Amino acid sequence: MKITSLGGGHGLYQTLVGARLCEPESITAIVTVADDGGSSGRIRRELGIIPPGDLRMALAALAADDAHGTMWAETLQHRFGGNGALAGHAVGNLLIAGLTSVLGSEQAALDAVADLTRSHGRVLPMCNEPLEIEADVSGLDDDPRIIRPVRGQVAVATTPGTVRRVRLIPDRPEASPAAVEAILDADLVTIGPGSWFSSVIPHLLVPGIVDALNQTSALKAVLLNLSAEPGETQGFSSERHLHMLSQHAPSLTIDRILVDVHTIPTASERAYLDRAACTLGASVELVDVRLEDAEGRMTNRHDPAKLCATLRQIHRVARTPGADD
Amino acid sequence: MKITSLGGGHGLYQTLVGARLCEPESITAIVTVADDGGSSGRIRRELGIIPPGDLRMALAALAADDAHGTMWAETLQHRFGGNGALAGHAVGNLLIAGLTSVLGSEQAALDAVADLTRSHGRVLPMCNEPLEIEADVSGLDDDPRIIRPVRGQVAVATTPGTVRRVRLIPDRPEASPAAVEAILDADLVTIGPGSWFSSVIPHLLVPGIVDALNQTSALKAVLLNLSAEPGETQGFSSERHLHMLSQHAPSLTIDRILVDVHTIPTASERAYLDRAACTLGASVELVDVRLEDAEGRMTNRHDPAKLCATLRQIHRVARTPGADD
Repeated sequence: MKITSLGGGHGLYQTLVGARLCEPESITAIVTVADDGGSSGRIRRELGIIPPGDLRMALAALAADDAHGTMWAETLQHRFGGNGALAGHAVGNLLIAGLTSVLGSEQAALDAVADLTRSHGRVLPMCNEPLEIEADVSGLDDDPRIIRPVRGQVAVATTPGTVRRVRLIPDRPEASPAAVEAILDADLVTIGPGSWFSSVIPHLLVPGIVDALNQTSALKAVLLNLSAEPGETQGFSSERHLHMLSQHAPSLTIDRILVDVHTIPTASERAYLDRAACTLGASVELVDVRLEDAEGRMTNRHDPAKLCATLRQIHRVARTPGADD
Repeated sequence: MKITSLGGGHGLYQTLVGARLCEPESITAIVTVADDGGSSGRIRRELGIIPPGDLRMALAALAADDAHGTMWAETLQHRFGGNGALAGHAVGNLLIAGLTSVLGSEQAALDAVADLTRSHGRVLPMCNEPLEIEADVSGLDDDPRIIRPVRGQVAVATTPGTVRRVRLIPDRPEASPAAVEAILDADLVTIGPGSWFSSVIPHLLVPGIVDALNQTSALKAVLLNLSAEPGETQGFSSERHLHMLSQHAPSLTIDRILVDVHTIPTASERAYLDRAACTLGASVELVDVRLEDAEGRMTNRHDPAKLCATLRQIHRVARTPGADD
């Protein structure tokens, strides 16, 4: 099985940790490049390169799990302390930035880091240029009909208003050819979980990515979040998360919507979700992917082992003739 | 042959490039840790670690010369451009700093980088704590008898006055046990070339290093500089360079003083030099180690191939019974 995972941030990290447990033939991470916060944002503004943070996290998730890979993953993720000019910078971000200068290409830099960590897979930016996110946000004024543009990933992620729609700047950017190829070549493509407007929807605003998703013969699964995030999707239902996908990419088709079984308590919610999935051409599967803590209590994080079992299961069922009808 | 090279900065870099051409059984670089300038100084002040710059250069000098090693050496040496908070930082310095935090030891960090670059040898700081240099400097006042303390490697290296003596702060620091062992275990120990007060003499202010130099059965060779540096040793003769060594380490014994044949034009200069070498128990050897440019003109840099031939030659002669009498 070849797995290609689209996303960014912690959501993609957990998906990749789960995916590698499946011991697939290959794993490819396709990562958003619109981050403008923290270490990534500082590097992006200072050096004019693709923000490295989400790419670095994906590389850390895929590092070999022997002592060598673990040490390098920890080093990539390590943030400088103190209160000086370096404070908060992740070592891996600086390494990716340095390698990008030396090798003349961010992709070559990412591949060099993957080689260093003896990576289980390849990490690709969705586009080879840094992008910005701009959102239409309501609820910032007394009059709820007023919609204001909010620019930048951090500003969008933390807006106290309600995000109606996001767009990329520049608009309709060119997809990374390697990312397109990894989608076309996959057996299973996962989208999400993650910050919906920062890490998931940006992929669907790249025409080449949507075209590849619609052309691939891979099974395409959207992994919904386990909890609404504070900020950008506060109070959004699972159904609304799906509507957001079709709103931003009307032509997009998906096969499976994976929803944690503990997330949907009522039959009417399930009915709404089924209807929203239908507009994407997808069916909903209730799955158990939630991590339990040491006392057996449910957390808001995905369990990599359960994720792996789920991915294997949907892939196996999809390959069985007649099972998908 | 096992080679151990003491120094810092560009002088040590060239020596290591020459030493590795000899294809010795092992190479160990022992590096000063009193730098307070540039990227190293900023990292040292911000994170409280041993200044990484000279250590990084030594690692770059020893990196494997295949495509992999060359790429990583170039990345270690790469400095960020622009005019932001990262400008001027060498990627390798940041990587060493990050690895030091993760691994809890600068030596472990240096060994991890050596592993990364498939290094030809090991790089050791002379001490496991950051040090400061303080110099007694004359000529800063109208009255030339007034001697003022000048603190810090950059301040000492650039003083318009005349450096009379340097000391380390803290005084009499403990030598790195690994450095002591590498000196005791060597067949050939080189000291210099390099900035005399910043890169060479600091080694001789560490009692454990001097003791190891006096105890080792290795052949000990001082490589003199090809030209007086502007700043700290402006106008110093070769003879005075040697006097500086015995002044700072009265018990130190050396076997060979290697002087480029083009540096000593007159017989009387040679006589002075022989006398100065004698106080160290050493003999002077005039050698051809100067790099020629494409037009056959002499430069002020050491030629690694000539250095290698010289090191091989003095080691071979020293091993021949009777040759050393």
